[in-house]
Amino acid sequence: MDDLYVKMTTPQPAPPAPPAPPAISLFPLPINVSFGGAFQPVDPALSISVSPANAVLQAYADRIKGAIFATTTPARAPPPGATAAVQITVADPTAPLKLYVDESYTLTFPAGGAPATITAATIYGAMMGLQTLSQAIRYDYNAGVYAVASTPLVIGDAPKFAWRGILIDTDRHWLSLHTIFRIIDSMGTAKMNILHWHIVDWQSWPLQSVARPGLWNASWSARERYTLADVPTVVAYAAARGIRVVPEFDTPGHASSMCVAYPDLCPSAACGPQTNNPLTPVPDAGGNPVALNAIQAVLGEIAAATTDEFFHLGGDEVDESCWANTPAVTAWMAAQTPPYTSTDQIYEYFVEKVDAMTIALNRSPIRWEEVWKHFGTDLDPRTVIHAWLSTETLINATSLGYRAIWSVDGKYYLDALNEPWQSFYDVDILAGVTNSSAIPYILGGETQMWGETADGSDVLQTIWPRAAAAAERQWSYDVVTDSSDPQVALRMAQFRCLQLERGFASAPLNNAGARQAPPGPGSCTTQ
Amino acid sequence: MDDLYVKMTTPQPAPPAPPAPPAISLFPLPINVSFGGAFQPVDPALSISVSPANAVLQAYADRIKGAIFATTTPARAPPPGATAAVQITVADPTAPLKLYVDESYTLTFPAGGAPATITAATIYGAMMGLQTLSQAIRYDYNAGVYAVASTPLVIGDAPKFAWRGILIDTDRHWLSLHTIFRIIDSMGTAKMNILHWHIVDWQSWPLQSVARPGLWNASWSARERYTLADVPTVVAYAAARGIRVVPEFDTPGHASSMCVAYPDLCPSAACGPQTNNPLTPVPDAGGNPVALNAIQAVLGEIAAATTDEFFHLGGDEVDESCWANTPAVTAWMAAQTPPYTSTDQIYEYFVEKVDAMTIALNRSPIRWEEVWKHFGTDLDPRTVIHAWLSTETLINATSLGYRAIWSVDGKYYLDALNEPWQSFYDVDILAGVTNSSAIPYILGGETQMWGETADGSDVLQTIWPRAAAAAERQWSYDVVTDSSDPQVALRMAQFRCLQLERGFASAPLNNAGARQAPPGPGSCTTQ
Repeated sequence: MDDLYVKMTTPQPAPPAPPAPPAISLFPLPINVSFGGAFQPVDPALSISVSPANAVLQAYADRIKGAIFATTTPARAPPPGATAAVQITVADPTAPLKLYVDESYTLTFPAGGAPATITAATIYGAMMGLQTLSQAIRYDYNAGVYAVASTPLVIGDAPKFAWRGILIDTDRHWLSLHTIFRIIDSMGTAKMNILHWHIVDWQSWPLQSVARPGLWNASWSARERYTLADVPTVVAYAAARGIRVVPEFDTPGHASSMCVAYPDLCPSAACGPQTNNPLTPVPDAGGNPVALNAIQAVLGEIAAATTDEFFHLGGDEVDESCWANTPAVTAWMAAQTPPYTSTDQIYEYFVEKVDAMTIALNRSPIRWEEVWKHFGTDLDPRTVIHAWLSTETLINATSLGYRAIWSVDGKYYLDALNEPWQSFYDVDILAGVTNSSAIPYILGGETQMWGETADGSDVLQTIWPRAAAAAERQWSYDVVTDSSDPQVALRMAQFRCLQLERGFASAPLNNAGARQAPPGPGSCTTQ
Repeated sequence: MDDLYVKMTTPQPAPPAPPAPPAISLFPLPINVSFGGAFQPVDPALSISVSPANAVLQAYADRIKGAIFATTTPARAPPPGATAAVQITVADPTAPLKLYVDESYTLTFPAGGAPATITAATIYGAMMGLQTLSQAIRYDYNAGVYAVASTPLVIGDAPKFAWRGILIDTDRHWLSLHTIFRIIDSMGTAKMNILHWHIVDWQSWPLQSVARPGLWNASWSARERYTLADVPTVVAYAAARGIRVVPEFDTPGHASSMCVAYPDLCPSAACGPQTNNPLTPVPDAGGNPVALNAIQAVLGEIAAATTDEFFHLGGDEVDESCWANTPAVTAWMAAQTPPYTSTDQIYEYFVEKVDAMTIALNRSPIRWEEVWKHFGTDLDPRTVIHAWLSTETLINATSLGYRAIWSVDGKYYLDALNEPWQSFYDVDILAGVTNSSAIPYILGGETQMWGETADGSDVLQTIWPRAAAAAERQWSYDVVTDSSDPQVALRMAQFRCLQLERGFASAPLNNAGARQAPPGPGSCTTQ
């Protein structure tokens, strides 16, 4: 083709190129960064080596390499002196993925072509370093090469909070494993590390149970289900990406889908199934506590299918009126020794029993904050309090030595479509915490993707980019303040462009409705 | 865990399962299908062999296998007698991917465990057979095995129309390669085979040009671009999936983004850049036809980067008033021999020159229908007419021996968000064609994903599931009629579930706004 257009055209000088994007736009912002002034080309055949050899980390590095280089094939070979190697060194490659696993890393990218390095205590820290590397290396369309624009680049980084999560809800809409995998993959771009899987609820029950095989008859359809074997598949997929899966089985409310197949788990026909009325405390004719037995069976199955130390037991929004209005329940209350005088005692009966089951399974319970409000320091000290109604609960619980997670509704709820990214960004998880001894008990935060209007068609762009705004505050707490900094908006926009480059549906940033379409033609950098 | 719950729980019989989904729901509906009554388990370790060996088809088969089996790991080994092998036989494995490549296939899935077979003339037919296979094998959650529900299954299948396409628009919003890859992957589920890539337009110019290096200065940003090397990357990705990439470079209208860097390509400052005014016919001071030379340079570069026989040249919506109102242009018209008396002659001047360049590049031009309406049988007979305004143009052109494609606005425009899937389904591409000799000239149809409000965040669910409604009519024309058949809606819903299972964002079917979110909790089968 060269001959053709050389003959046909009049040579014309190229006009100056438009402004380049920020040379290096890192998100979440690393804690310590120093940039030099040298433009350093990178060989697309970049070798990423891991020492000591580690298959999980090497596979992660290979995927990151695909993300960096797959989108553009340079038209020419890299110039002499291009960086050709990244050397990763991990001090403790067998450190397990758990709360407080060391996620820190250092990254150096020298000028001149010497190998880049990532040094980390654990493979999970190294994964975080690789995510940063994947943002630092960009294709420079004008220069025609991949490059790190500003070297030597030296980064020392670690998260402020250990718990940087997102809740997904597979009750209101079933999400396929492939959709869950894409959520997990996308979380890596924002250095998030917890997938809180709200598996079941009162509207549907997609999960297999061997012990109670009828439960998943309450799935939305016979094809919208998870086998018990699917759960470790998700756990393993996430773990290979440095993400912990925390399962949730919410009781005694939010569980009456269990009564579709097993009506005796609900207090009465008027109380369920598929309402938010709680399960029954009343035993069957043989004296067996049918609801607790079913809960124990399901807990055991989920625990066997997962690995995390934590198990979310819900406990929120328990409407006790159904208990009060069911004669069999009130008769049971009267038969207790001493007789129960309040349905709150039934609530506590469930919480104590289920917490004990969970602790016996070697798991630490997580409870929505109503449980704290009702029972406070009666709870086992291993319990983690999940604040979704008020910051006060988080402050109170942590002041008393209980661990807590921040997810307050109206600020961290992704299903609140009128909450812009700034609202997420401006959450200061430590605001109002005056007792400095409480701070270590504040594990972090979790944005909540409740699924009423989010299915596989729209869940990603309901999550992104808003969840990333929260994730940056959680990671970079000590070096960022609030969304009013113009640099924050600039980096958010560049980060959204990056997510789109990776093929993740990330909604326009300037968006009155969270996941609305772009209003017209335009750039990812400004929409 | 078994010990635990066996001890804790009272054995309870499983209640009956809810209705299963349709045993086999195939989409698009194959032309000939016969089902037996035998439930045939399938071994997840299914071996898919290709004879003669073919790396492209084997890789496709391996991906299909991943799609079939990746989402659910059975809890137990398949029963004895499970089908363990699929044998693919291709008669002409080197047949190139081009218009009228043989996409037919036969698929047999015996009862009893004998190997399934796919027989096809070409690897592209075999790919279509593999897509069908991937819909026939499903995990039966109640039985706990993968299975084909109704065997022996015998399918003989071929598309009605050779051209089953979708247009993507990377002008109004740049789409990353990873997003384009996902569009291509998702097209396979509906057996679509043409990606019409409307690369550039007047709002932006994302594509590199070596001959005119300033052109992509009109990209939305310096990171929203394609190198020339990206184009064959997309072509190869699509070809490996049986999908042809037809590039479009629309002129002389819809191209004034070229004038951002090269103002002399537009008639005057008032005519551009980045309006829909057409390029200039006026030569530069040296007598060189600057716009035509630039068009030739770009055409040559795109042709070198693509492989398809067809090259879409646009030619639509040429607003001639800018020519008429520019003194330099009217002076040029007067200087012609004989003098031009109408700006339509400029339009024809461009069409003739650009068609000739394209034919010289061994490509057949495709033109939007205005070009037919203006110049009719003056056009080279290799020209394909793309009807987007009226069925009449398609009827007229094909009656006169020109090939044509159907994409009429208001019926096949995916950016028309008020058009439900039924509107797409009910298009009969042959409606009104009374001259049977014209039928062979009707290549097929193309749904149009214009990008004004579709970027990487929402393009998939703007396309799906509506494009699939068109795709089924294009493939299964002889065995389906219209959307009023309840079986069609049922299969559309099951197909949407399948797309969600594969991780593709496919919007709710019952949707007044095309890509709206689901209105509340529910099933993919009914929303």
